[in-house]
Amino acid sequence: MIDPIIVINPNSTEAVTEAMSAALDGLRLPGGPEIECLTNPDGPAGIESQADVDQVAVQLRAMVDRRANNASAFVIACYSDPGIYSCREATEKPVYGIAESGMLSAMSRVEKFGVVAILDKSIPRHLRYVRVLGLESRLVGERAMGLGVVELSNEAVAYARLLETGTKLRDLDGAQAIVLGCAGMARYRKRLEDELSVPVIDPTQAAVSNALTNSLLKST
Amino acid sequence: MIDPIIVINPNSTEAVTEAMSAALDGLRLPGGPEIECLTNPDGPAGIESQADVDQVAVQLRAMVDRRANNASAFVIACYSDPGIYSCREATEKPVYGIAESGMLSAMSRVEKFGVVAILDKSIPRHLRYVRVLGLESRLVGERAMGLGVVELSNEAVAYARLLETGTKLRDLDGAQAIVLGCAGMARYRKRLEDELSVPVIDPTQAAVSNALTNSLLKST
Amino acid sequence: MIDPIIVINPNSTEAVTEAMSAALDGLRLPGGPEIECLTNPDGPAGIESQADVDQVAVQLRAMVDRRANNASAFVIACYSDPGIYSCREATEKPVYGIAESGMLSAMSRVEKFGVVAILDKSIPRHLRYVRVLGLESRLVGERAMGLGVVELSNEAVAYARLLETGTKLRDLDGAQAIVLGCAGMARYRKRLEDELSVPVIDPTQAAVSNALTNSLLKST
Amino acid sequence: MIDPIIVINPNSTEAVTEAMSAALDGLRLPGGPEIECLTNPDGPAGIESQADVDQVAVQLRAMVDRRANNASAFVIACYSDPGIYSCREATEKPVYGIAESGMLSAMSRVEKFGVVAILDKSIPRHLRYVRVLGLESRLVGERAMGLGVVELSNEAVAYARLLETGTKLRDLDGAQAIVLGCAGMARYRKRLEDELSVPVIDPTQAAVSNALTNSLLKST
Amino acid sequence: MIDPIIVINPNSTEAVTEAMSAALDGLRLPGGPEIECLTNPDGPAGIESQADVDQVAVQLRAMVDRRANNASAFVIACYSDPGIYSCREATEKPVYGIAESGMLSAMSRVEKFGVVAILDKSIPRHLRYVRVLGLESRLVGERAMGLGVVELSNEAVAYARLLETGTKLRDLDGAQAIVLGCAGMARYRKRLEDELSVPVIDPTQAAVSNALTNSLLKST
Amino acid sequence: MIDPIIVINPNSTEAVTEAMSAALDGLRLPGGPEIECLTNPDGPAGIESQADVDQVAVQLRAMVDRRANNASAFVIACYSDPGIYSCREATEKPVYGIAESGMLSAMSRVEKFGVVAILDKSIPRHLRYVRVLGLESRLVGERAMGLGVVELSNEAVAYARLLETGTKLRDLDGAQAIVLGCAGMARYRKRLEDELSVPVIDPTQAAVSNALTNSLLKST
Repeated sequence: MIDPIIVINPNSTEAVTEAMSAALDGLRLPGGPEIECLTNPDGPAGIESQADVDQVAVQLRAMVDRRANNASAFVIACYSDPGIYSCREATEKPVYGIAESGMLSAMSRVEKFGVVAILDKSIPRHLRYVRVLGLESRLVGERAMGLGVVELSNEAVAYARLLETGTKLRDLDGAQAIVLGCAGMARYRKRLEDELSVPVIDPTQAAVSNALTNSLLKST
Repeated sequence: MIDPIIVINPNSTEAVTEAMSAALDGLRLPGGPEIECLTNPDGPAGIESQADVDQVAVQLRAMVDRRANNASAFVIACYSDPGIYSCREATEKPVYGIAESGMLSAMSRVEKFGVVAILDKSIPRHLRYVRVLGLESRLVGERAMGLGVVELSNEAVAYARLLETGTKLRDLDGAQAIVLGCAGMARYRKRLEDELSVPVIDPTQAAVSNALTNSLLKST
Repeated sequence: MIDPIIVINPNSTEAVTEAMSAALDGLRLPGGPEIECLTNPDGPAGIESQADVDQVAVQLRAMVDRRANNASAFVIACYSDPGIYSCREATEKPVYGIAESGMLSAMSRVEKFGVVAILDKSIPRHLRYVRVLGLESRLVGERAMGLGVVELSNEAVAYARLLETGTKLRDLDGAQAIVLGCAGMARYRKRLEDELSVPVIDPTQAAVSNALTNSLLKST
Repeated sequence: MIDPIIVINPNSTEAVTEAMSAALDGLRLPGGPEIECLTNPDGPAGIESQADVDQVAVQLRAMVDRRANNASAFVIACYSDPGIYSCREATEKPVYGIAESGMLSAMSRVEKFGVVAILDKSIPRHLRYVRVLGLESRLVGERAMGLGVVELSNEAVAYARLLETGTKLRDLDGAQAIVLGCAGMARYRKRLEDELSVPVIDPTQAAVSNALTNSLLKST
Repeated sequence: MIDPIIVINPNSTEAVTEAMSAALDGLRLPGGPEIECLTNPDGPAGIESQADVDQVAVQLRAMVDRRANNASAFVIACYSDPGIYSCREATEKPVYGIAESGMLSAMSRVEKFGVVAILDKSIPRHLRYVRVLGLESRLVGERAMGLGVVELSNEAVAYARLLETGTKLRDLDGAQAIVLGCAGMARYRKRLEDELSVPVIDPTQAAVSNALTNSLLKST
Repeated sequence: MIDPIIVINPNSTEAVTEAMSAALDGLRLPGGPEIECLTNPDGPAGIESQADVDQVAVQLRAMVDRRANNASAFVIACYSDPGIYSCREATEKPVYGIAESGMLSAMSRVEKFGVVAILDKSIPRHLRYVRVLGLESRLVGERAMGLGVVELSNEAVAYARLLETGTKLRDLDGAQAIVLGCAGMARYRKRLEDELSVPVIDPTQAAVSNALTNSLLKST
């Protein structure tokens, strides 16, 4: 029997975990590995600051430690990839970060991509990680939707802002693909892709795709 | 019904196409897209020079043109990704190159990777492509097996040389993963990974993985 | 007797070859090598896409093969330098690309240069080559004239657009020299240089200059 | 009255804090700010892994929060600069990391510097941070002493290994200055500098120097 | 007794030297090294061109030669760091350039900094030096005040322009700190810092800070 | 009548100027511009240090000023390109540096080049200039012959060392062309090229070639 792929939502909001899980149904295959989505019960409601990232890094490591013997791979489902290097110390199982997998997925299709962030203040943090990964030359830039929590939960408002931000990335910055810079926007992926006519990447889907195919090919 | 994933072996050697196809069985899913491997009948027996690459680029473009309406994605299965930008002009379907997908796959797991090439003279060509892709900072280097055709077909000799080359990349250059820099080495992937204890990437598997999961997620 | 310098126009338009040849008269020296301009009879009328580039690469290689014993150097006279690495495989004679020589010529005079392209869609292709050559830090950018074939043949319209595009490169982007990103704009070089007061480089002249002086110095 | 400079030793070993404090005596000036060295009581005995770094990041943030109203600046005294971006979120007071200040101090004197790490496994972590900081082009490399805890506490053995490692950085790698890649090697700084005849930087001294002079110049 | 820190104003304007010296009072410590500010009597009234820089480089070297036995460190107080590599050949005492120290000081506090230059024509010269130092990725850009000598001496006009230029660097370019790109603007530092709410670095203060703390720590 | 190309030997050794001039005979064309080689009477016998470079920069600027109205171009014939930016301020005529032109000439032929320096201590100075020019990615490295003046004047010894150094650049470092990193080695160019079977560039020839063809094409 194949061990499950463990997807960890580092924040404590169950609704985010559930939406994330629903967006992964296309990767749940007959005979394939289970895709199990966990919520971090000790995390903040949302991850908005470097302090949040640092705090959940420790919690994620503990969660990985607990499941290391019952997982085929781990996915850290926050667009800052909190704790990824520590989690990789903890296990020889693959550990995928959604920011990393999301950007690499865009790069497998196009030369230049852009990222939609939720908040302006996340952008410097994301860009530090882009430098760690050496991907600067492929990123045309990040732009933030700049919505507060209340507006984000209003889907019409949120999608309109997402579309506006993605359009700027495509038309002003030259993005040939858009990466959704957050684990909670999967529901808008297809609609945005259809409307912008460029690939739109949900990063959690990208990371779980990597985990899934790695699992399928393990013994070949 | 889902359109098939078209994997094109740019050389004319049927045995290479067949081995490639066999190595993709793990990605042939019940209900998933067919994975159809084509041989380029007009290609050289093997692709060894820039002239070979340029020649097959034109042929691949014609093959993509012919199948553009009956494919969910294309994979160019030569580690120089010949004709990739021209094929992308020809179709809005995703076109994956195995060199590009292979390197990105390694990057989703580790910080620094190395590549095993067949021939020394391919390395400058590969490195030009690495610069096009902006991945220089992640590649520790390429090393060639340096085997002629006759020795390559002797599996014992070929594997020994592959192991020796991969070991140098890991121990002298610091590679944390190895990418097989050729479409025809899939049969050694698992054995080498087990022996080196670092991820070993077959690039055709990596590219078809991208095509497959993109297809599975298309409507989500 | 000195072997001629072979300049190959990769497209099939004789008028382009003739204009190119006329622009090289200043480099035809008493006692110097002949400068012979060839048309590629099998090429497209103009080179506008990656498919065009890939196709003529193969044809250029064949032309170089045919003349390898009767040439002191080759010049590939299309601003995408099609087939340059393959042609260099074919002969030990110098093979110059006009894009490469044009940019290097600008760099011998100024710190930052800009490029005028004909079409917007050529720019990503040119930029891939700039990355291959590692010249990103010297290029302020490319801007396209955006003229169709009909308007291009109207010299007044074409020059006006060239001047407008070059002015933007100089004033908005900081270009201290302009490279004409096409083999067919030599006739405007001097006029544009006089009007912009910065060096304007015709890339075919730049490449043939390299071939000529290399020939003159061969035995020193 | 001037608020003190708060230097935080992220590990729980009081002896390290005391040695660190002693090495800062030259910066304790009549009329200048107090330099107060704190131990992190909840930290590990030494910081050796990414998990250690992530864990103390959270603790350091809490320590900074507690002292934010009674400090002129903070110094994070571990060569991985744990929690530095989170601590900078917490306060408008300057927050200096010793790795960052140590490398910048070397750069103010020489073109190329090298770093002596304690453990091999710290080097990839340090190099990620070098990429975040964009300092790759100035670093000739890091080399580890490779000593266990017991041998490190034997000063004769430790110094011999430090000298050997620093000599390799200078002679094989071309380092024109050496940064001690650890908060606990200040006692060897002068001796090593005298013996190698190149500047040797203790990073804690470098960071506290920045904090001190910033404080002295505050109102000018 | 400690040898003095020698700060050399490369231009011949005594008033500049005096203002510079006054701005260093916070670094004149009881028991600390004397900070002696010298004027270059043979320099131009102000350094505005590359020719000026080259000329004073030779003069500075001679001044360093004369004081090499009676100095603990040298500071070259012109934002082009004229002659710095030659002066470093002349003495084993530390030689600090204010441009280099100023930028490194900004980098010890923030990720991205901007520079206010006096004249537009100085910017390419400064940027060449930024490339020598490998600091491109940290600099958001330089902007010039664009004031002539007469207006510069009018403090109200000069400060207004400085504020306007610094505001653009912060708001349009994303500078998180501002470096004053000239030795003669120290008097505006604190006022500008208070008004912009980001660190503002006087580069002469930054370089003398480095010299001072190096001196204080010399025997530790 | 065409104004002459002025080639300035920045050192005061007439024999160097004469050898340089002889190596340019291939570029003296019937009807072409005169190539006039000047010695800097106030220069040192040879340029070996940054102080030498800085000193002759001022002298070269004065020489350019004197000849600005009677020159079609200037060539600064020392492999450190002393004073090049100041000379470019002085005249709108092209000013070519031999290091810059030499490296660009190599780049017009091959992907990777190496440089033979005379002295080890020149290498850091050369590399600073390579960074100014943004050519790092094309240079495999510099290696010094390490000969003193006496041995350099012994042609047999000098050539043997040059061959040994060039061989290392080709075989150990991967140089596909060699640039002679000094104005005084032209006499060995052809012999070395024949023996190494890779292009060998004399940088003074390269710079004068640029000046010559620029002059020939001026009115086209």
